[in-house]
Amino acid sequence: MTKPTPSSTPPTDSLDDLRERLRRFAAERDWEQFHTPKNLAMSVAIEAAEIMEHFQWLTAAQSASLDAVARHEIGHEIADVLLYLVRLADVLDIDMVAAAREKIGLNAHKYPVRGGL
Amino acid sequence: MTKPTPSSTPPTDSLDDLRERLRRFAAERDWEQFHTPKNLAMSVAIEAAEIMEHFQWLTAAQSASLDAVARHEIGHEIADVLLYLVRLADVLDIDMVAAAREKIGLNAHKYPVRGGL
Amino acid sequence: MTKPTPSSTPPTDSLDDLRERLRRFAAERDWEQFHTPKNLAMSVAIEAAEIMEHFQWLTAAQSASLDAVARHEIGHEIADVLLYLVRLADVLDIDMVAAAREKIGLNAHKYPVRGGL
Amino acid sequence: MTKPTPSSTPPTDSLDDLRERLRRFAAERDWEQFHTPKNLAMSVAIEAAEIMEHFQWLTAAQSASLDAVARHEIGHEIADVLLYLVRLADVLDIDMVAAAREKIGLNAHKYPVRGGL
Repeated sequence: MTKPTPSSTPPTDSLDDLRERLRRFAAERDWEQFHTPKNLAMSVAIEAAEIMEHFQWLTAAQSASLDAVARHEIGHEIADVLLYLVRLADVLDIDMVAAAREKIGLNAHKYPVRGGL
Repeated sequence: MTKPTPSSTPPTDSLDDLRERLRRFAAERDWEQFHTPKNLAMSVAIEAAEIMEHFQWLTAAQSASLDAVARHEIGHEIADVLLYLVRLADVLDIDMVAAAREKIGLNAHKYPVRGGL
Repeated sequence: MTKPTPSSTPPTDSLDDLRERLRRFAAERDWEQFHTPKNLAMSVAIEAAEIMEHFQWLTAAQSASLDAVARHEIGHEIADVLLYLVRLADVLDIDMVAAAREKIGLNAHKYPVRGGL
Repeated sequence: MTKPTPSSTPPTDSLDDLRERLRRFAAERDWEQFHTPKNLAMSVAIEAAEIMEHFQWLTAAQSASLDAVARHEIGHEIADVLLYLVRLADVLDIDMVAAAREKIGLNAHKYPVRGGL
């Protein structure tokens, strides 16, 4: 587990910044004991289902033309998934941006662009 | 829907960079037609379950002491969730970092730090 | 899609009975249009996450010693998964009990009992 | 926790029969230690996501006109959810059919049939 290094300036990268805020948030509330990888993995899945709830009975077309209120609510659900995901990667000491770039590379190889592009 | 503005230099923020890469990836493969918010929301949930699969039968203690191989595999599953989440926020034109900071603020209010901190 | 045959006596098997009740419930409310296999599959997953929510922060030991109130609430979440699952199997014309028995057989072969049992 | 009573004849109700088979299956493999409610709740959600995977990129119409091969595969995924759900209800000593009937009654009250039916 990486430990936060005290710093006077906040990180400039948005994911680094969220990671630092979440570390502090958990530490201040003594919640690190609950943040096992297993519990955080469950939390990501639970919040992912809450995003889905907004789309459960919508047609594909309806899901693409939501009003501002719905988009604001869904933004909060997306945020919840992101926050638990950042926290999960942090407690596992995984660089998720590096992993994501690696995955895009693997997918580009798996699904090559056809034609003359 | 925001449209990518052509740029000669890649974004410096990691999430902006992933968003741009995914836009290009979908456009090059003509996959935008499949990337409805409804389908992407399902995809986030499906990949979240694949993270969980690694922890399904582990104790909390085991989940916190994974070897490098397991952590590398889980890194890829975390990446899959992140990529679909970035893409979902993009097609809905949601700023997920702003939403995440807003959510941390709301949670700080909801769960105040006890004691003299 | 199988269609219900009118009958004067309710089915004696509990799953058959639930299937009939759900068919009638959807028909009376004109909800069949929403009950596509895709939407019902999402619904099963959404309700499964609601079961998980009850166990999210519990230890394995705590999860095995719930009080009557918690068990009653979880019973309703389990019921929601069961109802959508029965409905999904019905609209796909799948005999889920036969499939479940087949799956137990496959698993028994995959994970043979060791030793002299 | 209810304990199985030895019986010479198998239960006639399909869910009772599955419950008995799963009890025996777990006991014979000494898997009861893994079957905490928390782990089984995760398992239900993981298998629910595997159902969804079949519908991830399909339109609503495509999801309603699957061929026999797809329906057979999905039948096995539905079976997996059912089996973990039956097992979860069993270890929690919950009568899931009673809960399901109660839930249908609550939903009938919540969503009354309109018109002259």
